[in-house]
Amino acid sequence: MHHPENDEQYKGLKVNEGVTDAPIVNPYMQRRKRPVYTVDDYVSAILKGDVTMLSRAVTLIESSRPEHHAMAQEVIEKCLPYTGNSVRIGITGVPGAGKSTSIDAFGMHVLNQGRKLAVLAIDPSSERTKGSILGDKTRMETLSREKNAFIRPSPSAGSLGGVARKTRETIVLCEAAGFDTIFVETVGVGQSETAVHSMVDFFLLIQLAGTGDELQGIKRGIMEMADGIVINKADGDNIDKANLAASHFRNALHLFPPTESGWFPKVITYSGYYALNIDKVWEMIDEYLDYVKGNGYFHHKRQQQAKYWMYESINEALTNSFYNNPKIRALLPRIEADILEDRISSFMASAKLLDLYFAEKGGDQ
Amino acid sequence: MHHPENDEQYKGLKVNEGVTDAPIVNPYMQRRKRPVYTVDDYVSAILKGDVTMLSRAVTLIESSRPEHHAMAQEVIEKCLPYTGNSVRIGITGVPGAGKSTSIDAFGMHVLNQGRKLAVLAIDPSSERTKGSILGDKTRMETLSREKNAFIRPSPSAGSLGGVARKTRETIVLCEAAGFDTIFVETVGVGQSETAVHSMVDFFLLIQLAGTGDELQGIKRGIMEMADGIVINKADGDNIDKANLAASHFRNALHLFPPTESGWFPKVITYSGYYALNIDKVWEMIDEYLDYVKGNGYFHHKRQQQAKYWMYESINEALTNSFYNNPKIRALLPRIEADILEDRISSFMASAKLLDLYFAEKGGDQ
Repeated sequence: MHHPENDEQYKGLKVNEGVTDAPIVNPYMQRRKRPVYTVDDYVSAILKGDVTMLSRAVTLIESSRPEHHAMAQEVIEKCLPYTGNSVRIGITGVPGAGKSTSIDAFGMHVLNQGRKLAVLAIDPSSERTKGSILGDKTRMETLSREKNAFIRPSPSAGSLGGVARKTRETIVLCEAAGFDTIFVETVGVGQSETAVHSMVDFFLLIQLAGTGDELQGIKRGIMEMADGIVINKADGDNIDKANLAASHFRNALHLFPPTESGWFPKVITYSGYYALNIDKVWEMIDEYLDYVKGNGYFHHKRQQQAKYWMYESINEALTNSFYNNPKIRALLPRIEADILEDRISSFMASAKLLDLYFAEKGGDQ
Repeated sequence: MHHPENDEQYKGLKVNEGVTDAPIVNPYMQRRKRPVYTVDDYVSAILKGDVTMLSRAVTLIESSRPEHHAMAQEVIEKCLPYTGNSVRIGITGVPGAGKSTSIDAFGMHVLNQGRKLAVLAIDPSSERTKGSILGDKTRMETLSREKNAFIRPSPSAGSLGGVARKTRETIVLCEAAGFDTIFVETVGVGQSETAVHSMVDFFLLIQLAGTGDELQGIKRGIMEMADGIVINKADGDNIDKANLAASHFRNALHLFPPTESGWFPKVITYSGYYALNIDKVWEMIDEYLDYVKGNGYFHHKRQQQAKYWMYESINEALTNSFYNNPKIRALLPRIEADILEDRISSFMASAKLLDLYFAEKGGDQ
């Protein structure tokens, strides 16, 4: 069967409208007036499900301006009492596995159940290459036309920690706006899976039939995080191959130690493009949710995630303070080059940088 | 066959003599005189292979006193030019897999090749429970009687980051003292494997025959780090079971993505207690070393490790500065309890703590 989604692998993502700063050519020129919203404007609109204001609030979260950041924190804090009631699902798979088409199909299945869906993404490549794999233009064609679906690409500024924090804060606002199902999409090639894994209730890995080439992109360790593995493109001539792959994965999973939840990860074949077996995938997720809500693991995991994110936020702030320090920024590239050329030990390198930083902070390490 | 190592699973480790502070009962009482060594005393003795002085220097590394720490750093820095020429092997496996017996057998094999062996350990449980799994009394009976073997248990103070740093610094001193083979042992149940993985050239996972119970202790993700998996207790009646387990693991490894080195992990059966097939295990390690030295990965990995450890040292210092702050120490337990009882969000919790810390440091986050 022909899979049109292969023709253009990196389709863009439809970007919901947000707040865009007008480019300032002459700083002395009067800036164009834009409506100014208060924290309460944002909060009351979000709680009413106003998607335009939700989108603007997410833009505040993603902004690098301190005054936007401060306002975003207030909006988040006021939205918090109205959050936590959604199901959060992490979805990963290498480029080419058919993630966009699958999310389109999964998403329509969710909407047909009368639910509201937000699709977010974590893609740290978007900061390095300025071109996100999880795209800027239209992917998920069907879903992007649905009014009960809110699609937002990966935040693009900052470190992985920063990107992950912004996505986590966006989840809060989406939940407050009434979205009861959250997808967090990522590419299975980096470290972002750990970040996604620590903010979702269920972690789904999309694989393709066949061993060898198709698997090469996925990062080691990701398979063991999955609560479910789904084999895409199980259609037409490909069904036998997909079933064989599924049985290989089932055997391999038996060699893994049990999950913390007590749940045994399932392997299911489906076709995103032809929307086959999507209900089976969702039955698995529902079965998982019943299981972990029954044994208390669902709530336990959310609490542990909250604790984890407190420590992550602290670590992010501490390292930002260090690496954004002008003296450290000036010295670090040279020190790193010295290490890679064996001219200095890691011991001396870190000591040099730390002395510089703490001397400025008052000398108290 | 009877496996006597099962009788007492947690055998202690022979501790080489080190510097022990005399307990001070009355602080006004004259302290007992102990020989005082200079940095150069340590360095010249270590470079001559003096194991007693090596051991004392390691005790300086492990000491929590700032003056010991400063002296240790100087000793390390002066030893650095004489290091890097060893082979570093990480060894992991759950309690009961027969690690001590195996290391005894592997170690004797190494010594019989005319090499000098240091056996170190990373066991973060030693800080929490004050009782290290990788023990304080005599394990590795044969090896501990050999003059060319230096056995040192896990450092016991501080965080995993601190414990790992101390072990890494100890590797430096051991190499300067002429030890050309370093084993770093760990228990496959925690996060310490990542730390060990990032300081060794080859990562060996010890498993037992049989699926199910025996595997339950190993942490998810560790299998994918292994450059080699060895199945212990392949002796007598157990040989068929071990071979079957080996073929299961070989099949499972085919589903994993390739390693960064290009090496395909091998699976080998052996018996630590009866010293069977130890040469096969070592042939695998030698083959790996030839391979990665040939393709340049060996040197590349060491440089990346040095860079990694610079950043780890910086992160350790930053978080120590934060979590050792008296005000943070006073507030943190209450905040963490509030999070686990859903009384505060992770967002507000981290903001509260960070404001407190940076206000004291001069307000510059």
